[in-house]
Amino acid sequence: MINSNPEVAHTVQQLIEFIGTFAFAISGIRMAAAKHFDWFGGFVCGFAVAIGGGTIRDVMLGATPFWMTSSIYVVCTVFALLVVILFAKSLNRMENAWLVFDTFGLALFTIAGLQKTLLYEHSFWVAIIMGCITGAAGGIIRDVLLNQEPVIFRKDIYAMASVAGGLVYWLLTLAGLNVGLSSITTFLVICLIRFLAVRYHISLPILRDEKRN
Amino acid sequence: MINSNPEVAHTVQQLIEFIGTFAFAISGIRMAAAKHFDWFGGFVCGFAVAIGGGTIRDVMLGATPFWMTSSIYVVCTVFALLVVILFAKSLNRMENAWLVFDTFGLALFTIAGLQKTLLYEHSFWVAIIMGCITGAAGGIIRDVLLNQEPVIFRKDIYAMASVAGGLVYWLLTLAGLNVGLSSITTFLVICLIRFLAVRYHISLPILRDEKRN
Amino acid sequence: MINSNPEVAHTVQQLIEFIGTFAFAISGIRMAAAKHFDWFGGFVCGFAVAIGGGTIRDVMLGATPFWMTSSIYVVCTVFALLVVILFAKSLNRMENAWLVFDTFGLALFTIAGLQKTLLYEHSFWVAIIMGCITGAAGGIIRDVLLNQEPVIFRKDIYAMASVAGGLVYWLLTLAGLNVGLSSITTFLVICLIRFLAVRYHISLPILRDEKRN
Repeated sequence: MINSNPEVAHTVQQLIEFIGTFAFAISGIRMAAAKHFDWFGGFVCGFAVAIGGGTIRDVMLGATPFWMTSSIYVVCTVFALLVVILFAKSLNRMENAWLVFDTFGLALFTIAGLQKTLLYEHSFWVAIIMGCITGAAGGIIRDVLLNQEPVIFRKDIYAMASVAGGLVYWLLTLAGLNVGLSSITTFLVICLIRFLAVRYHISLPILRDEKRN
Repeated sequence: MINSNPEVAHTVQQLIEFIGTFAFAISGIRMAAAKHFDWFGGFVCGFAVAIGGGTIRDVMLGATPFWMTSSIYVVCTVFALLVVILFAKSLNRMENAWLVFDTFGLALFTIAGLQKTLLYEHSFWVAIIMGCITGAAGGIIRDVLLNQEPVIFRKDIYAMASVAGGLVYWLLTLAGLNVGLSSITTFLVICLIRFLAVRYHISLPILRDEKRN
Repeated sequence: MINSNPEVAHTVQQLIEFIGTFAFAISGIRMAAAKHFDWFGGFVCGFAVAIGGGTIRDVMLGATPFWMTSSIYVVCTVFALLVVILFAKSLNRMENAWLVFDTFGLALFTIAGLQKTLLYEHSFWVAIIMGCITGAAGGIIRDVLLNQEPVIFRKDIYAMASVAGGLVYWLLTLAGLNVGLSSITTFLVICLIRFLAVRYHISLPILRDEKRN
């Protein structure tokens, strides 16, 4: 159905991308608020989550960073800043919604990273790493700016959902599936892994501290 | 007057740029000293403030980082390191001078960022962001290296002076003013905003922590 | 001898490079373990040490990051992760071996940085800085990810061994020595300085904190 109507698919993708960017920006701004940063600090942290991973990817690919070609990402971050400023109290009640949005962002950013890297004719293992960087590096930059240990180095499975999605995309492409169906399946796999990980608190094993064990 | 004598204008700009680079390097080295870093750590922190923002800008523009084309920035940082090593005790008495130098640096780096980005034919809103990155990102990198929260996310208005200067530069360009006069006006606007902000402790509002309010 | 048999020299260099990458990755993963990061966090910290410096160099040179052109660096980091997971307890007994491997990595990464920068026709002072970045920046990124002050800003001489090696390489090139002999001499000089620094706890002077002195 989606293949038979590329315009609808494109609009859906843009909508999900906007929602993902918005959710990523919100996560940065809320954590900046918890550190009592000012509005500018909030904007930078939000923008860093929203565009950080894709910017690192584009710089390594030798491409112009994607956010410099369309003002939507800046606008989206300003909009997220206004929402946090105006509705800070109400945001707590929406944790589940943010989780869903953030996961959509992770999945869609991963797919965008995979496809752009393949477009630049790199190997698939490079694309999988770039997909993971696109989806997860922004959160690491946010935590570095907040002066705290990156949460994704300890919490429920996050980046590995992106890597798993990349592997699925690879297998489906090898199997000859078209881009549209491969993307949708990858999207669903990443969301499923992430939701299961949060629901059942599934984490990767912690590295043993050699001095204590 | 400055337009009628481009050589004088160029010399004045180079002198201010040297002073700005020097002041930026000093700020990094002094904060490294407060953390008891060694001389190498001081050099890296000073160099990071002096060239960090412009390097991020150039990498995103696809240009060779500016400091790789002239040794003046390395020399200037080494000179700043020597000054801090030899005259550490005297530096405290010069706080006002450092504030003035640092503000000159912010203003001039912002203008350099604006002009270089426009030269690469990006939109004006990209140039304003790049001007802000050129002026303010070095200080963020310094704070990340020092393992502390970036001060410009909480202190008196700093980065927003750069953004305001970028908007003024945009308006003046739209109004058809030439580059020289636009640059001088932008320089004065940034310095004025920054000095007023420090003098009267003007800050952006702090984001409310949703858990406490 | 080495010159008369380029294939042996190449194999030796690849072997040392693999050992250096492995040692760098181990250092990142072990420090991630001390912070109780999970396997993914360990991989990222290890990979950051192994490829961080060279990636910054390549991005500034306008080259494709080296690790994107051969999977050996990813494989090497995964292998290092497995070693830390399986043999955490035994690693403590090998401190001296890690020091030697890590120093080999520093020396070889420095030389790789020097040569690649000169290949891109930059000045020698740029090459010396790039050599130092290639060898030492990965460790700084690791410490930023671990949310701690970079150890090389305070510890025994490390980055300055790389800079000294760069100066030696410069002098030998000026003197007309061929690349092979210049490289070997530089390698030995860096290792010697580093081993002496560790053996006799030679550090750079600490910057004086102006407020306390």
